[in-house]
Amino acid sequence: MPDQDQLHAMRHSSAHILATAVQRLWPEAKFGVGPVVENGFYYDIDLGDTMISEEDFGRIEAEMQAIIKDNVPFERFEKSIDEAIQWATDANQPYKVELLNDLKRAGTTVAKDLNADELGTIASGDAQVENVSFYRNGDFTDLCRGPHVESTGKVGAFKLQRVGGVYWRGKDTNPQMQRVYGVAFATPKELRQYLDMLEEARKRDHRKLGQELDLFVFSDLVGSGLPMFTPRGTVIREELANFTMSMRAAYGFEKVWTPHITKKDLYEASGHWAKFGDKLFLVKSQETSDELVMKPMNCPHHTRIYTSQPRSYRDMPVRYMETTTDYRDEKTGELGGLNRVRALTQDDSHVFCRPDQIETEINNLLAAANELYKTVDMSLRVRLSYRDDSDTYLGSMELWEAAQAQLKSAVIANDLTYFEQAGEAAFYGPKIDFMATDAIGREHQVATVQLDFVQPQRFELEYTAEDSSRQTPVMIHCALLGSIERFMSVYIEHTGGKFPVWTAPEQVRIITLNQEDDTVAFATDVLQQAKNMGVRASIDNAGESVGKKIRAAELYKIPYTIVLGQKEMEGGQVTPRIRKDLVASEESAALPIANFLQTVLAESLSRTLKSTL
Amino acid sequence: MPDQDQLHAMRHSSAHILATAVQRLWPEAKFGVGPVVENGFYYDIDLGDTMISEEDFGRIEAEMQAIIKDNVPFERFEKSIDEAIQWATDANQPYKVELLNDLKRAGTTVAKDLNADELGTIASGDAQVENVSFYRNGDFTDLCRGPHVESTGKVGAFKLQRVGGVYWRGKDTNPQMQRVYGVAFATPKELRQYLDMLEEARKRDHRKLGQELDLFVFSDLVGSGLPMFTPRGTVIREELANFTMSMRAAYGFEKVWTPHITKKDLYEASGHWAKFGDKLFLVKSQETSDELVMKPMNCPHHTRIYTSQPRSYRDMPVRYMETTTDYRDEKTGELGGLNRVRALTQDDSHVFCRPDQIETEINNLLAAANELYKTVDMSLRVRLSYRDDSDTYLGSMELWEAAQAQLKSAVIANDLTYFEQAGEAAFYGPKIDFMATDAIGREHQVATVQLDFVQPQRFELEYTAEDSSRQTPVMIHCALLGSIERFMSVYIEHTGGKFPVWTAPEQVRIITLNQEDDTVAFATDVLQQAKNMGVRASIDNAGESVGKKIRAAELYKIPYTIVLGQKEMEGGQVTPRIRKDLVASEESAALPIANFLQTVLAESLSRTLKSTL
Repeated sequence: MPDQDQLHAMRHSSAHILATAVQRLWPEAKFGVGPVVENGFYYDIDLGDTMISEEDFGRIEAEMQAIIKDNVPFERFEKSIDEAIQWATDANQPYKVELLNDLKRAGTTVAKDLNADELGTIASGDAQVENVSFYRNGDFTDLCRGPHVESTGKVGAFKLQRVGGVYWRGKDTNPQMQRVYGVAFATPKELRQYLDMLEEARKRDHRKLGQELDLFVFSDLVGSGLPMFTPRGTVIREELANFTMSMRAAYGFEKVWTPHITKKDLYEASGHWAKFGDKLFLVKSQETSDELVMKPMNCPHHTRIYTSQPRSYRDMPVRYMETTTDYRDEKTGELGGLNRVRALTQDDSHVFCRPDQIETEINNLLAAANELYKTVDMSLRVRLSYRDDSDTYLGSMELWEAAQAQLKSAVIANDLTYFEQAGEAAFYGPKIDFMATDAIGREHQVATVQLDFVQPQRFELEYTAEDSSRQTPVMIHCALLGSIERFMSVYIEHTGGKFPVWTAPEQVRIITLNQEDDTVAFATDVLQQAKNMGVRASIDNAGESVGKKIRAAELYKIPYTIVLGQKEMEGGQVTPRIRKDLVASEESAALPIANFLQTVLAESLSRTLKSTL
Repeated sequence: MPDQDQLHAMRHSSAHILATAVQRLWPEAKFGVGPVVENGFYYDIDLGDTMISEEDFGRIEAEMQAIIKDNVPFERFEKSIDEAIQWATDANQPYKVELLNDLKRAGTTVAKDLNADELGTIASGDAQVENVSFYRNGDFTDLCRGPHVESTGKVGAFKLQRVGGVYWRGKDTNPQMQRVYGVAFATPKELRQYLDMLEEARKRDHRKLGQELDLFVFSDLVGSGLPMFTPRGTVIREELANFTMSMRAAYGFEKVWTPHITKKDLYEASGHWAKFGDKLFLVKSQETSDELVMKPMNCPHHTRIYTSQPRSYRDMPVRYMETTTDYRDEKTGELGGLNRVRALTQDDSHVFCRPDQIETEINNLLAAANELYKTVDMSLRVRLSYRDDSDTYLGSMELWEAAQAQLKSAVIANDLTYFEQAGEAAFYGPKIDFMATDAIGREHQVATVQLDFVQPQRFELEYTAEDSSRQTPVMIHCALLGSIERFMSVYIEHTGGKFPVWTAPEQVRIITLNQEDDTVAFATDVLQQAKNMGVRASIDNAGESVGKKIRAAELYKIPYTIVLGQKEMEGGQVTPRIRKDLVASEESAALPIANFLQTVLAESLSRTLKSTL
C-alpha cells in the first residue's frame, strides 16, 4: 500500500492524464485547475459551447488508458514567471495566464487570494515567487508544483465519476467551466472496493431507507431541516436516547428540564451572543418587548439550575443531563436528510466539578462512550481538539494547556486510539471528539466531551471549598450520540435499516395463516401477550397469502416473523423466521411461544446484535 | 345553606353596608361601583388624598357590624333618569352622575360600553331605560338594580380582605380610586372555612414549595414564564408524563416526535394563523427568508405524519402521542409561577379515526382520565364545552351538533358528573374539559378531550373506505394532564409537597448513625442496592447529629428515612421512619433491608397513595 504522499502524487498525475486526454479529444480545450480531492481528483475545463456528458467518459477513459499504456515520464522543468506567462499565452490558455499574472502582480501575497487547490497547481516557491515549475508528460505540459509519479504508467487505477458546471474561481461573474471528477486508488482492488462502498452507501442512503421503513418525514408546510418522526422512527430515537441517558444515570447524572427559548441576555452573559449571534433563530414576542432566541445549546440554561442553590465541596460533582432539542439557523442549501438539520436533539450532559474530580468524570464519560459505540458495533477513535494561536478562544493560555493535558491523559488511560489537532477546539475549551467508523468504512464525528474553564467564570459559578473559600467549578460538556438526528442518519446507513432487536421499531410480526376466527383470536392473544411483556409486535391478519405477508414483513426488515395457524394453536409452539443477518440460518427450531417472546425481550434489554435463538 | 341567588344578594348587600360605613367615616367619599365577585364583593371609593390601608379595616368593620346590628331594611324605590341625575348631583356623587348620563345619552346601547358589574348596579330595565332603581338602608342610598336581602342584619358573615388602587372604569386616564375587597359567606362557619382554605393555600403555594423543595427555578437571564426544572422537579414531570403516556400506549397510542418550530404556512393551512396569529412567538431566520413560528399546539404537525402514508379503513384508528413543549406569547403580567407559563409542555395525543370509531376512542380516553385523577386523588367533573351562535367557529352547524351529541353520550356512558356550557368550545370543535378538585376544595381545569371535524377537512386528510371511496377521518385531541407545568402547580398545592412514593423525587433518605468507615461503606452499599433496583434514594453521611439529619430529610418531605448503624449492619434489618401523612403511625416495625426496598419499589410502581408498610 502506497503512503499518502505517493497516493496524492498518483491522483494528481491522474488529473494531468485526464487533461492530456481531453486536449487530444478537444484541442481547443482551455484548462483551469486540476487538484487532488478526497478519494480522487478533478480538472476544470472550458470547452466553449461543447458540453461533456457522462456518455463521453468512455472515450475519455480509453484515451487516458492509452496514455497510461505509453508510460511516458513526467518531466519537471522551471521557467521564470515572465517566460511562463509567454508560454501560457502561446498555448492559448487564458486561465493559466490569469493565474500567473495574479502571481506576478502581487508577489507572494496573492497566495492568500488563491485557494489551496489553485496554489498547489502553480506555486513552486514559498516566500518569494521567482520561478514557476512545469510538468510535461509526452504532448501535454502544465504548470504545476508537483510532485508527480515517475511516468504515466504508475498512476494506479482510476474511474471518471461525474461532471458538473462550476464558475471559474468560484465567482458567478466569471466564465462557466466543466469540472470532471475522477476517483483514483493505488490498485484496481482498492478502486473496486471504493466503488462498491459508494454503491452500498447509495442503497443505504438514510433518506431512502427513512421513507421505505417509514421512519421520518419532512413537510413543505413545516419547512426544511425540520424532520418529524413517525412512530417507527420515534422508537429508535427513544431507545438510543434512553440508553445513553441510562449509562450516565449510573454515573450519577440526574435529568433536568429547560425551555427551548431564552432572553438573549443569557448568551450575552455566556459569550455566545458575540460569537454566534448571527447563527441563532431570533424569537419575537408580539405581546412584550422581550428579545428572545432559540437555544442552540443547553449549557447556559444548566448553569442557571446550578446557581439556584448554594453548593459546597461535598455536593460536587453536580451532574445534569437533558435530551432536548436545540435550534440552529443553518442555510437551507446545507440541509440534507437527517445529516444536517435545524432542529437537533442532543443527549446532552454537564458536570460541574472540582478540578481534582476532572479525571474521574472524564473517565466515566469515556467509558460510557466506549460502551455505546461497542453496542452499536462501530469502532471509535478520538480527536483531541486543541486551540490554535488565534485570538478566537476565551480564557488564558495556561488554563488551556492544563486542560488539554488532562484530556490527553484520560484518553491515554482509556486506551483509546487518538490523534491531536489544533484549531478544532470550542471557543471555551478543548474537547475530545469521537469518530466512529460505520459498516462500510466511513468515519463520522459523533460524541464529544468538552472541558470548559470559561463559562463557569463568566457566570460566576461557585462552590464553597473545605477551607470555606469560594472556588470556581469546572464544567464538562458531553453528548454521547451528539445530535440524535445526525446519529440516526449514520446509524440507519450503518445498519442499512437492519436494526438489531433493541432498536428495531417492530421486533416481531405475527402473521395469521388464515382469517378464521379462532386463528385471529389466537394471534391477537399472542400479540397482547407480547405487548404486555414490552415486546414491540404487530399483527398481519389481512386476507393475503402467507407468502405475501412474509414479504411485506421483510420489506420492513423486521427481526422476527412468526406464522400462526392450527398447528401453533394446538402445540403452543412457534418456529420463528429470523432476519438473515441476525443468524447463520434463517429458520430456527420450534419453541414455546412464551419462551420465544421472553428471548426477544431479553435480547432487547441486553441490546444484543445477533439473535440468540 | 342559601341558594346562589340568596348568597349573591347577601354579598351585594355587604357591599352597600361597606359603602354605608365608609360614608359615615369619610362623609366626603365618592363612590364608583360595588359589585359581587367570587367569594365576596368590592366597592370602588374615591377619598381624594386620603388613603385607606388595611389598618383602617378594624374601624370600618366595626362600623359595618353596627349597621348590621341596627338591622334596618333595604328599601327599593325608583326615579326617572333625570331625577336620578339630579339626586346624584345633589349627593355630590360625580361617578354616579357620569354613569347615569351615559345611560341617558345612549339609551340602551350604552349597555355594551359598561361592564357587567357597572350595569348590575344601575340598570333597572332591559330593552329601554326609563326609570332606574335605588336601594336605601338607613342613612345610605345607592342607585342599584338589586336584589338585596331584607335588612342589614341578614347579610351573613364577612371580612374585609385587601385594598388596592384602580382607575375609574379601568382607563388609566381616569381618576384613581381605591377598591376595597371583602369576602362574605352565609355563615361564620363557612367564612372561617374559606379563610382557613386561603391560609392553607398560602402555605401550599407552589412557588414557595417549589423553592423549599428545590423543584424548579426561574432566571432573569432566561426570562419570565420560562421555568427550568431541577433534578427533583424533573422526576415529578417525568413520572406524571410517563404515566399518562403509558395509559394511552395500552390503548394503542404510539409516540411521535415533531420540532418546536414550523413555517407559518402550516398554521395558514390549519386556520390557526388567522385566529391566533398575534398570540404566537415569531421566529426569524437570519440565514434565510423563512417565516417561522413556535408551535402553540401539535395537531397540525401530527397531520403531516398522518398524510405521509396512504391510510386504509383497516389502518384506522391511527393514534399518535407526544409529550412536547408548546410556546404561547402570554403577556408578562399574566404569568405566575407554573400556573401560567410561556413554555407549556403538553401530554398531547391525537386520534385519527373513522366516524364509527369515535365512541370507543372517547371512552378509552375518558377511562384514562378517570384512572389518572383517581391515582392523584382528585375528584373530577366534566364540562361539555359547546359552541354558541357566534361566527367564530369553523365547520357547519350540523357537524357541530352531531359531535356535541356524541361527546355527551360518551360522558353519560362513563358515569361522569357533567355540566354543559355553550361558548367554551375550541374554534374547530366541541370538547370535554375536565375539572379536578384539589385537597383544599379548589377546582382546576385540567385534562381535555376535543373532537375536530375541521382540521381533517382543511388538511384534506383521507383514508380509503371499504368501498374504495375516499373518506375524511375525524380527529380527537386529548391531553390528560393538560399543561404539565400548570398541572404541577395544581399537584404541588394539592399534595402540599407531600408527594406519594411514586412521584416523590427522593423516596428514601439513608442516614448514617456515625461517620465510621464501616457504617459509611454499609450505607453506601444499601444506596447502591436501592439505585440498582430503581428506588430513588440518597445518602446523608455528614458529620451531623442523627436528629439534625432526620430534620433535614423532613424538610424535603421524603416518604421514608432509614438510619443505619452497627445494629442495622449486624441484623440486616431497618426500622423505617415513615412520613406522617402516609400512615397512622410514623414508626413501623423492623424488616430486612431488601424487603423494605422491594416494598418501596412496589409502591412506586403501583402508585399507591399510602404506605403499605
